[in-house]
Amino acid sequence: MKNLIEESITGIIDDIVADYDQGRIVDNLDVHSIPSTDAIIEIIDKLLRILYPGYHIDRTYKTYSIRTTIATVAEDVAYRLCKQIALALKFDEDYADKCETVIQERAQEVTVQFMAALPRIREYLDTDVHALFDGDPASESPDAIIICYPGLYAITVYRLAHEFYKMNVPIIPRIMTEHAHSLTGIDINPGAQIGKYFFIDHGTGIVVGETTIIGDHVKLYQGVTLGALSLKEGRGLLNVRRHPTIEDNVTIYSNASILGGETVIGHDSIVGGNVFLTRSIPAGTKVYAKAQELHFDTDVDTPQVQDVTQTDNTDYVI
Amino acid sequence: MKNLIEESITGIIDDIVADYDQGRIVDNLDVHSIPSTDAIIEIIDKLLRILYPGYHIDRTYKTYSIRTTIATVAEDVAYRLCKQIALALKFDEDYADKCETVIQERAQEVTVQFMAALPRIREYLDTDVHALFDGDPASESPDAIIICYPGLYAITVYRLAHEFYKMNVPIIPRIMTEHAHSLTGIDINPGAQIGKYFFIDHGTGIVVGETTIIGDHVKLYQGVTLGALSLKEGRGLLNVRRHPTIEDNVTIYSNASILGGETVIGHDSIVGGNVFLTRSIPAGTKVYAKAQELHFDTDVDTPQVQDVTQTDNTDYVI
Amino acid sequence: MKNLIEESITGIIDDIVADYDQGRIVDNLDVHSIPSTDAIIEIIDKLLRILYPGYHIDRTYKTYSIRTTIATVAEDVAYRLCKQIALALKFDEDYADKCETVIQERAQEVTVQFMAALPRIREYLDTDVHALFDGDPASESPDAIIICYPGLYAITVYRLAHEFYKMNVPIIPRIMTEHAHSLTGIDINPGAQIGKYFFIDHGTGIVVGETTIIGDHVKLYQGVTLGALSLKEGRGLLNVRRHPTIEDNVTIYSNASILGGETVIGHDSIVGGNVFLTRSIPAGTKVYAKAQELHFDTDVDTPQVQDVTQTDNTDYVI
Repeated sequence: MKNLIEESITGIIDDIVADYDQGRIVDNLDVHSIPSTDAIIEIIDKLLRILYPGYHIDRTYKTYSIRTTIATVAEDVAYRLCKQIALALKFDEDYADKCETVIQERAQEVTVQFMAALPRIREYLDTDVHALFDGDPASESPDAIIICYPGLYAITVYRLAHEFYKMNVPIIPRIMTEHAHSLTGIDINPGAQIGKYFFIDHGTGIVVGETTIIGDHVKLYQGVTLGALSLKEGRGLLNVRRHPTIEDNVTIYSNASILGGETVIGHDSIVGGNVFLTRSIPAGTKVYAKAQELHFDTDVDTPQVQDVTQTDNTDYVI
Repeated sequence: MKNLIEESITGIIDDIVADYDQGRIVDNLDVHSIPSTDAIIEIIDKLLRILYPGYHIDRTYKTYSIRTTIATVAEDVAYRLCKQIALALKFDEDYADKCETVIQERAQEVTVQFMAALPRIREYLDTDVHALFDGDPASESPDAIIICYPGLYAITVYRLAHEFYKMNVPIIPRIMTEHAHSLTGIDINPGAQIGKYFFIDHGTGIVVGETTIIGDHVKLYQGVTLGALSLKEGRGLLNVRRHPTIEDNVTIYSNASILGGETVIGHDSIVGGNVFLTRSIPAGTKVYAKAQELHFDTDVDTPQVQDVTQTDNTDYVI
Repeated sequence: MKNLIEESITGIIDDIVADYDQGRIVDNLDVHSIPSTDAIIEIIDKLLRILYPGYHIDRTYKTYSIRTTIATVAEDVAYRLCKQIALALKFDEDYADKCETVIQERAQEVTVQFMAALPRIREYLDTDVHALFDGDPASESPDAIIICYPGLYAITVYRLAHEFYKMNVPIIPRIMTEHAHSLTGIDINPGAQIGKYFFIDHGTGIVVGETTIIGDHVKLYQGVTLGALSLKEGRGLLNVRRHPTIEDNVTIYSNASILGGETVIGHDSIVGGNVFLTRSIPAGTKVYAKAQELHFDTDVDTPQVQDVTQTDNTDYVI
């Protein structure tokens, strides 16, 4: 039997290598200047160990006192982070042509500032755990929330990524939130500003855009979009406020969409399931979709005829 | 070049360790009493090997007769499971302060009862494979369904988790279904009760709440929520029936929401795409959203004017 | 303490093994004829290395010239692929009972044809990267898109899988797109036909059915379904055109559903968010849902009464 692969592979490889010679984006061969997604995922895993020291056990650390354990993890994370940040800074116009020393110094500065922020981040996360436990009748214990709830995972990774976003670190914040997006279906842009006691349940399909501002005690259910209006202008909208403001104590039920940079949902409001909202509402407002007109038909094997319009769902909100 | 990280890390670590001293949930340091998510995912993988012996090959087992292979896997799973269950039982108020012997005995009891249920679970799963193959024109073979369909994966993990839920094992059922949720976007609470021939296609965004009851031959498409009504009361609703009943032979098309503990969808009914339903419907009913009013505008570069309201979609259901 | 597991495990194993003896689908024990999901995921990872040579670094290859690196990866991929294709072909009725030589020859033929298509696939992917960068104001650089955007990942895996679909390779195309579905929440059937400059943002919940045809410069946002109408006929619809045609330069905003094999969205059209469309629209049409009727109530602690119907959103499209 002849081996067709053996006969053909050299020609195929020649064609592929020749194909790299066209100067397109996909032909970029400069492999050394790119942060490693795997390395950043490993850093997230180690940061979870610091944030929730009792819940995310890394058994590769054999030391036993909490101080020694955390010191080992924290030092390890700091040096890994610094390396990735230095790689990422080369994507920043201001650093792209700077010498290695300048980049290293900035990377160390960012790393130290980030690590120093961890107690403040933990203060926020403790409020998020409380919000998740208090708001979900199905949650059996705060432990279960920290161990396996996707809402808390996505919020945690967002809060970490947002620190890097504020310090203008390129690419790394998005790698972090896209990792959480992949695991949870919850897509929170690292640029969003989110207050304390943030609650997400189920979460799949949630989108929170880059310029969204969210207050304290806000609850989001699955499929909620906090998005932009028409994006016809595309990149022309860069750095413009495109996403809504959600004030304190607002609850937004499943699959509601709230769109636009000038849209403000006043504090203590409730937005019902499936509501599509592109204008502001004042504080203390409840917004429901008016009863959807439904058409009821009986099937062949049921004798009585049904043709009823549903008009009584104004009190139902998820 | 000075090393900013070296200069700062000790102070940062001191601050982090001091931060653990506040007695909050996130400060829990008792690492020994928590089931391991990684261990439970490994157990799920091994259980798939037992459930679908021809499809999930674990090449670390070098034995060849099916009995020896399954005996090796089953014994391995039983001891791993028993260890995780013992850890989980410490989150159960009734066992929290019991001696290790009592916990071990209960863990063994649960393990044995679970393993003995596997043939019954396989009976259900065989019906699910048939439902998935018969209902999806794009499915090329039952083999493909077992190998890579997310619907079957989510159903399988749910059916396993539900056994632990029925035996009041804390945390483990939710770790299991959240793992499936992460891989598939399908969020089935382990408390739901689901009959035979269960069909899920595409699946992303499906939510099936804790107290949902689903009959035989039920089909769900992507984005369907079987949810609760207003959750304003939060934890006050613990252990109350909050989610709907779906009787036999009901099909629910994409992105429909059916909400409320008193809502019953009678057998042999069809719920159309995007329907939002908070009341019961009798057996044999078809429910469609009445034609959505649409607004059609022509774009500048098309000569003829269009302004047509869509009124003819009452027969369309997905 | 007695060991309940030790006492019971033999009986349980006997029952499980006996349970395999019923001739059902789930009892299939022929483990040798099934492609390995893990092997195919590893092949995808290596193909990404070839498609985007600067972005997906596999540090297990220690060679340094791009030609040597790619030659090593390409040859490795070709032989791994060939092995999996040979396993998959046994699920094809035309090859099921052929001798090993015939299967091997066909597997080599498919492998070579696939590898030779990589430059053509890269031509399409370069246009997709441009579409993603140009259409998203939040994208910081084309590099970030290649490194971590789920839209590009799903499109890339779809374009690879579609090649195998066209050559009638069983199971492997679906394993590939289900892997991308699991990581991104984007479910593109390998049978869909998709033009250049394809844009997906956020992406969670997108479903693109098997017989969908999509032109150039088409944009899809999260939650869009390009689906079938009633599937009551189930497998009777096999090989019939069931999904819509989307012509060039069409934008479809979040959570819109477009259904049916005879539905054609004319070129240069815009389909607004949440639109549910089961009929064709001519070129250059904008379709919005007419303003949803909303019901506004003030909450107890806000003095002024609000009861306003939202009527002004006809220009808002996401």
